[in-house]
Amino acid sequence: MRVLGIDPGSTVTAFGVVERLRGRTAYVDCGFVRTSPDDPLAERLATIHATLVTALRTHAPDEVAIEAIFHHKNAQSALILGHARGVALLAAGQCGFTPHEYNPMVVKQTVGAGGRGDKKAVARMVAMLLGRPVEGPADVTDALAIAITHCAHARTQALRASK
Amino acid sequence: MRVLGIDPGSTVTAFGVVERLRGRTAYVDCGFVRTSPDDPLAERLATIHATLVTALRTHAPDEVAIEAIFHHKNAQSALILGHARGVALLAAGQCGFTPHEYNPMVVKQTVGAGGRGDKKAVARMVAMLLGRPVEGPADVTDALAIAITHCAHARTQALRASK
Repeated sequence: MRVLGIDPGSTVTAFGVVERLRGRTAYVDCGFVRTSPDDPLAERLATIHATLVTALRTHAPDEVAIEAIFHHKNAQSALILGHARGVALLAAGQCGFTPHEYNPMVVKQTVGAGGRGDKKAVARMVAMLLGRPVEGPADVTDALAIAITHCAHARTQALRASK
Repeated sequence: MRVLGIDPGSTVTAFGVVERLRGRTAYVDCGFVRTSPDDPLAERLATIHATLVTALRTHAPDEVAIEAIFHHKNAQSALILGHARGVALLAAGQCGFTPHEYNPMVVKQTVGAGGRGDKKAVARMVAMLLGRPVEGPADVTDALAIAITHCAHARTQALRASK
Protein backbone atom coordinates (compact mmCIF):
# COMPACT_ATOMS: atom_id res chain seq x y z
CA MET A 1 0.00 0.00 0.00
CA ARG A 2 1.32 3.40 -1.02
CA VAL A 3 0.34 6.41 1.11
CA LEU A 4 0.85 10.11 0.44
CA GLY A 5 0.85 12.29 3.56
CA ILE A 6 0.25 16.04 3.41
CA ASP A 7 1.35 18.72 5.87
CA PRO A 8 -0.38 21.91 4.71
CA GLY A 9 0.77 25.38 5.70
CA SER A 10 0.50 28.87 4.26
CA THR A 11 4.30 29.26 4.05
CA VAL A 12 5.46 25.67 3.54
CA THR A 13 3.26 22.81 2.34
CA ALA A 14 4.96 19.41 2.26
CA PHE A 15 4.13 15.91 1.09
CA GLY A 16 5.72 12.55 1.87
CA VAL A 17 5.17 9.21 0.15
CA VAL A 18 5.80 5.84 1.81
CA GLU A 19 5.02 2.27 0.86
CA ARG A 20 4.22 -0.64 3.13
CA LEU A 21 5.67 -3.86 1.75
CA ARG A 22 6.07 -7.18 3.62
CA GLY A 23 5.64 -5.58 7.05
CA ARG A 24 8.08 -2.74 6.40
CA THR A 25 7.40 0.90 5.65
CA ALA A 26 9.74 2.20 2.97
CA TYR A 27 10.48 5.72 1.82
CA VAL A 28 9.34 6.56 -1.72
CA ASP A 29 9.59 10.32 -2.13
CA CYS A 30 8.94 13.67 -0.50
CA GLY A 31 8.80 17.31 -1.48
CA PHE A 32 7.65 20.72 -0.44
CA VAL A 33 6.67 24.11 -1.79
CA ARG A 34 7.48 27.39 -0.10
CA THR A 35 5.40 30.44 -1.00
CA SER A 36 6.25 34.06 -0.32
CA PRO A 37 4.12 36.20 2.01
CA ASP A 38 4.79 39.04 -0.46
CA ASP A 39 2.75 37.32 -3.18
CA PRO A 40 -1.06 37.56 -3.36
CA LEU A 41 -2.73 34.77 -1.36
CA ALA A 42 -4.74 33.59 -4.41
CA GLU A 43 -1.46 33.04 -6.26
CA ARG A 44 0.18 31.24 -3.33
CA LEU A 45 -2.81 28.92 -3.00
CA ALA A 46 -2.67 28.15 -6.74
CA THR A 47 1.01 27.15 -6.32
CA ILE A 48 0.20 24.89 -3.34
CA HIS A 49 -2.70 23.31 -5.25
CA ALA A 50 -0.62 22.68 -8.40
CA THR A 51 2.25 21.13 -6.38
CA LEU A 52 -0.09 18.71 -4.60
CA VAL A 53 -2.03 17.74 -7.75
CA THR A 54 1.30 16.98 -9.48
CA ALA A 55 2.52 14.92 -6.50
CA LEU A 56 -0.78 12.97 -6.34
CA ARG A 57 -0.69 12.23 -10.08
CA THR A 58 3.02 11.37 -10.13
CA HIS A 59 2.95 8.99 -7.16
CA ALA A 60 -0.57 7.59 -7.65
CA PRO A 61 -0.96 6.59 -3.96
CA ASP A 62 -3.58 4.11 -2.79
CA GLU A 63 -4.58 6.45 0.03
CA VAL A 64 -3.99 9.99 1.26
CA ALA A 65 -3.54 11.19 4.85
CA ILE A 66 -3.53 14.68 6.36
CA GLU A 67 -3.29 16.25 9.79
CA ALA A 68 -6.71 16.52 11.46
CA ILE A 69 -8.22 19.86 12.44
CA PHE A 70 -7.07 20.56 15.94
CA HIS A 71 -7.58 23.30 18.41
CA HIS A 72 -5.80 26.53 17.69
CA LYS A 73 -5.22 29.18 20.28
CA ASN A 74 -5.20 31.93 17.70
CA ALA A 75 -8.20 32.46 15.38
CA GLN A 76 -6.18 34.50 12.89
CA SER A 77 -3.53 31.80 12.37
CA ALA A 78 -6.27 29.14 12.24
CA LEU A 79 -7.96 31.06 9.43
CA ILE A 80 -4.71 31.30 7.44
CA LEU A 81 -3.89 27.63 8.01
CA GLY A 82 -7.47 26.79 6.94
CA HIS A 83 -6.81 28.35 3.51
CA ALA A 84 -3.87 26.03 2.78
CA ARG A 85 -5.60 23.00 4.30
CA GLY A 86 -8.75 23.67 2.25
CA VAL A 87 -6.70 23.77 -0.95
CA ALA A 88 -4.89 20.53 0.06
CA LEU A 89 -8.19 18.73 0.74
CA LEU A 90 -9.54 20.06 -2.57
CA ALA A 91 -6.51 18.71 -4.49
CA ALA A 92 -7.00 15.29 -2.87
CA GLY A 93 -10.77 15.34 -3.53
CA GLN A 94 -10.27 16.32 -7.18
CA CYS A 95 -7.84 13.39 -7.58
CA GLY A 96 -10.47 11.00 -6.20
CA PHE A 97 -9.29 10.67 -2.59
CA THR A 98 -11.08 11.13 0.71
CA PRO A 99 -8.10 11.94 2.94
CA HIS A 100 -7.73 10.09 6.24
CA GLU A 101 -7.21 12.51 9.11
CA TYR A 102 -4.92 12.06 12.10
CA ASN A 103 -4.59 14.15 15.20
CA PRO A 104 -1.01 15.53 15.66
CA MET A 105 -0.76 13.70 19.00
CA VAL A 106 -1.67 10.37 17.36
CA VAL A 107 0.98 10.98 14.66
CA LYS A 108 3.66 11.65 17.30
CA GLN A 109 2.69 8.58 19.31
CA THR A 110 2.61 6.34 16.23
CA VAL A 111 6.11 7.24 15.09
CA GLY A 112 7.32 6.79 18.66
CA ALA A 113 8.12 10.42 19.42
CA GLY A 114 5.73 10.50 22.41
CA GLY A 115 2.47 12.42 22.40
CA ARG A 116 4.27 15.64 23.27
CA GLY A 117 7.45 15.13 21.23
CA ASP A 118 8.78 18.17 19.38
CA LYS A 119 9.53 18.46 15.67
CA LYS A 120 13.11 17.25 16.16
CA ALA A 121 11.94 14.08 17.94
CA VAL A 122 9.50 13.39 15.08
CA ALA A 123 12.26 13.93 12.49
CA ARG A 124 14.60 11.56 14.37
CA MET A 125 11.98 8.80 14.59
CA VAL A 126 10.91 9.21 10.94
CA ALA A 127 14.56 8.88 9.81
CA MET A 128 14.96 5.78 11.98
CA LEU A 129 11.73 4.15 10.78
CA LEU A 130 12.54 4.78 7.13
CA GLY A 131 16.21 3.88 7.58
CA ARG A 132 17.49 7.07 5.99
CA PRO A 133 17.94 10.74 6.79
CA VAL A 134 15.30 13.11 5.40
CA GLU A 135 16.36 16.47 4.03
CA GLY A 136 14.32 19.65 3.88
CA PRO A 137 12.23 21.58 6.41
CA ALA A 138 10.50 19.91 9.36
CA ASP A 139 7.24 20.04 7.39
CA VAL A 140 8.62 17.26 5.16
CA THR A 141 9.26 14.89 8.06
CA ASP A 142 5.82 15.81 9.42
CA ALA A 143 4.24 14.82 6.09
CA LEU A 144 6.17 11.52 6.09
CA ALA A 145 5.12 10.93 9.73
CA ILE A 146 1.44 11.36 8.74
CA ALA A 147 1.89 8.85 5.88
CA ILE A 148 3.63 6.37 8.23
CA THR A 149 0.79 6.82 10.74
CA HIS A 150 -1.81 5.94 8.16
CA CYS A 151 0.16 2.84 7.11
CA ALA A 152 0.25 1.66 10.73
CA HIS A 153 -3.43 2.40 11.40
CA ALA A 154 -4.67 0.97 8.10
CA ARG A 155 -2.80 -2.28 8.91
CA THR A 156 -4.37 -2.48 12.40
CA GLN A 157 -7.82 -1.86 10.91
CA ALA A 158 -7.27 -4.53 8.23
CA LEU A 159 -6.15 -7.05 10.91
CA ARG A 160 -9.23 -6.24 13.01
CA ALA A 161 -11.53 -6.58 10.00
CA SER A 162 -10.05 -10.00 9.11
CA LYS A 163 -10.68 -11.44 12.59
CA MET B 1 -17.20 47.31 -15.28
CA ARG B 2 -18.51 43.91 -14.27
CA VAL B 3 -17.69 42.65 -10.76
CA LEU B 4 -18.22 39.21 -9.24
CA GLY B 5 -18.45 39.19 -5.45
CA ILE B 6 -17.90 36.03 -3.40
CA ASP B 7 -19.19 35.20 0.07
CA PRO B 8 -17.46 31.94 1.02
CA GLY B 9 -18.72 29.61 3.74
CA SER B 10 -18.43 25.94 4.53
CA THR B 11 -22.21 25.41 4.36
CA VAL B 12 -23.28 28.07 1.85
CA THR B 13 -20.96 29.78 -0.62
CA ALA B 14 -22.58 32.50 -2.72
CA PHE B 15 -21.64 34.74 -5.61
CA GLY B 16 -23.21 37.90 -6.97
CA VAL B 17 -22.51 39.71 -10.23
CA VAL B 18 -23.18 43.40 -10.82
CA GLU B 19 -22.29 45.82 -13.58
CA ARG B 20 -21.57 49.53 -13.33
CA LEU B 21 -22.86 51.38 -16.36
CA ARG B 22 -23.34 55.14 -16.74
CA GLY B 23 -23.15 55.76 -13.00
CA ARG B 24 -25.62 53.04 -12.06
CA THR B 25 -24.94 49.62 -10.56
CA ALA B 26 -27.14 46.98 -12.18
CA TYR B 27 -27.87 43.42 -11.16
CA VAL B 28 -26.52 40.73 -13.52
CA ASP B 29 -26.82 37.40 -11.76
CA CYS B 30 -26.31 35.59 -8.47
CA GLY B 31 -26.16 32.05 -7.22
CA PHE B 32 -25.13 29.85 -4.36
CA VAL B 33 -24.14 26.31 -3.50
CA ARG B 34 -25.11 24.55 -0.29
CA THR B 35 -23.04 21.56 0.82
CA SER B 36 -24.00 18.95 3.38
CA PRO B 37 -22.03 18.56 6.64
CA ASP B 38 -22.61 14.80 6.19
CA ASP B 39 -20.39 14.72 3.09
CA PRO B 40 -16.57 14.49 3.31
CA LEU B 41 -14.99 17.96 3.47
CA ALA B 42 -12.77 17.24 0.41
CA GLU B 43 -15.93 16.57 -1.63
CA ARG B 44 -17.71 19.69 -0.33
CA LEU B 45 -14.71 21.85 -1.20
CA ALA B 46 -14.60 20.36 -4.71
CA THR B 47 -18.28 21.34 -5.16
CA ILE B 48 -17.62 24.91 -3.95
CA HIS B 49 -14.58 25.20 -6.23
CA ALA B 50 -16.45 23.89 -9.30
CA THR B 51 -19.40 26.25 -8.69
CA LEU B 52 -17.14 29.30 -8.46
CA VAL B 53 -15.00 28.36 -11.48
CA THR B 54 -18.21 27.93 -13.54
CA ALA B 55 -19.56 31.30 -12.33
CA LEU B 56 -16.25 33.06 -13.09
CA ARG B 57 -16.10 31.54 -16.59
CA THR B 58 -19.78 32.15 -17.36
CA HIS B 59 -19.86 35.79 -16.25
CA ALA B 60 -16.29 36.75 -17.24
CA PRO B 61 -16.11 39.65 -14.75
CA ASP B 62 -13.52 42.41 -15.03
CA GLU B 63 -12.73 42.11 -11.34
CA VAL B 64 -13.44 39.87 -8.36
CA ALA B 65 -14.12 40.92 -4.75
CA ILE B 66 -14.28 38.89 -1.54
CA GLU B 67 -14.75 39.55 2.16
CA ALA B 68 -11.45 40.34 3.89
CA ILE B 69 -10.05 38.18 6.66
CA PHE B 70 -11.40 39.58 9.88
CA HIS B 71 -11.08 38.73 13.50
CA HIS B 72 -12.88 35.63 14.61
CA LYS B 73 -13.65 34.92 18.21
CA ASN B 74 -13.60 31.19 17.63
CA ALA B 75 -10.49 29.48 16.23
CA GLN B 76 -12.39 26.36 15.23
CA SER B 77 -14.96 28.23 13.12
CA ALA B 78 -12.17 30.39 11.66
CA LEU B 79 -10.34 27.25 10.54
CA ILE B 80 -13.47 25.84 8.85
CA LEU B 81 -14.25 29.18 7.18
CA GLY B 82 -10.62 29.32 6.05
CA HIS B 83 -11.09 26.09 4.07
CA ALA B 84 -13.95 27.53 1.98
CA ARG B 85 -12.24 30.92 1.62
CA GLY B 86 -9.00 29.26 0.50
CA VAL B 87 -10.84 27.34 -2.20
CA ALA B 88 -12.66 30.53 -3.32
CA LEU B 89 -9.37 32.46 -3.57
CA LEU B 90 -7.85 29.52 -5.47
CA ALA B 91 -10.73 29.48 -7.99
CA ALA B 92 -10.27 33.22 -8.57
CA GLY B 93 -6.48 32.87 -8.85
CA GLN B 94 -6.78 30.01 -11.34
CA CYS B 95 -9.13 32.13 -13.46
CA GLY B 96 -6.54 34.93 -13.53
CA PHE B 97 -7.93 37.25 -10.82
CA THR B 98 -6.35 38.76 -7.75
CA PRO B 99 -9.47 39.30 -5.62
CA HIS B 100 -10.01 42.69 -3.98
CA GLU B 101 -10.74 42.30 -0.28
CA TYR B 102 -13.21 44.33 1.78
CA ASN B 103 -13.76 44.33 5.50
CA PRO B 104 -17.38 43.41 6.45
CA MET B 105 -17.79 46.79 8.13
CA VAL B 106 -16.73 48.63 4.96
CA VAL B 107 -19.21 46.54 2.93
CA LYS B 108 -22.07 47.42 5.31
CA GLN B 109 -21.17 51.10 5.29
CA THR B 110 -20.85 51.22 1.50
CA VAL B 111 -24.31 49.75 0.87
CA GLY B 112 -25.72 52.13 3.48
CA ALA B 113 -26.62 49.54 6.11
CA GLY B 114 -24.43 51.21 8.75
CA GLY B 115 -21.18 49.70 10.03
CA ARG B 116 -23.05 47.49 12.45
CA GLY B 117 -26.10 46.68 10.32
CA ASP B 118 -27.39 43.09 10.43
CA LYS B 119 -27.92 40.77 7.48
CA LYS B 120 -31.49 41.96 7.00
CA ALA B 121 -30.40 45.58 6.76
CA VAL B 122 -27.78 44.61 4.15
CA ALA B 123 -30.40 42.65 2.15
CA ARG B 124 -32.80 45.61 2.23
CA MET B 125 -30.16 48.05 1.02
CA VAL B 126 -28.88 45.69 -1.71
CA ALA B 127 -32.45 45.24 -3.04
CA MET B 128 -32.92 49.01 -3.02
CA LEU B 129 -29.60 49.75 -4.74
CA LEU B 130 -30.22 47.14 -7.45
CA GLY B 131 -33.89 48.09 -7.80
CA ARG B 132 -35.14 44.53 -7.37
CA PRO B 133 -35.69 41.93 -4.66
CA VAL B 134 -33.00 39.27 -4.32
CA GLU B 135 -34.04 35.70 -3.62
CA GLY B 136 -32.05 33.03 -1.81
CA PRO B 137 -30.14 32.92 1.49
CA ALA B 138 -28.57 36.00 3.08
CA ASP B 139 -25.18 34.85 1.71
CA VAL B 140 -26.38 35.84 -1.77
CA THR B 141 -27.17 39.42 -0.76
CA ASP B 142 -23.82 39.51 1.08
CA ALA B 143 -22.03 38.46 -2.13
CA LEU B 144 -23.89 41.15 -4.11
CA ALA B 145 -23.05 43.70 -1.38
CA ILE B 146 -19.34 42.86 -1.74
CA ALA B 147 -19.56 43.30 -5.54
CA ILE B 148 -21.41 46.64 -5.12
CA THR B 149 -18.74 47.75 -2.63
CA HIS B 150 -15.97 47.06 -5.10
CA CYS B 151 -17.81 48.99 -7.84
CA ALA B 152 -18.10 52.01 -5.53
CA HIS B 153 -14.49 51.87 -4.34
CA ALA B 154 -13.02 51.19 -7.79
CA ARG B 155 -14.88 54.28 -9.06
CA THR B 156 -13.53 56.43 -6.21
CA GLN B 157 -10.00 55.19 -6.87
CA ALA B 158 -10.35 55.87 -10.61
CA LEU B 159 -11.59 59.43 -9.91
CA ARG B 160 -8.68 60.01 -7.52
CA ALA B 161 -6.17 58.67 -10.05
CA SER B 162 -7.53 60.94 -12.80
CA LYS B 163 -7.08 64.09 -10.71
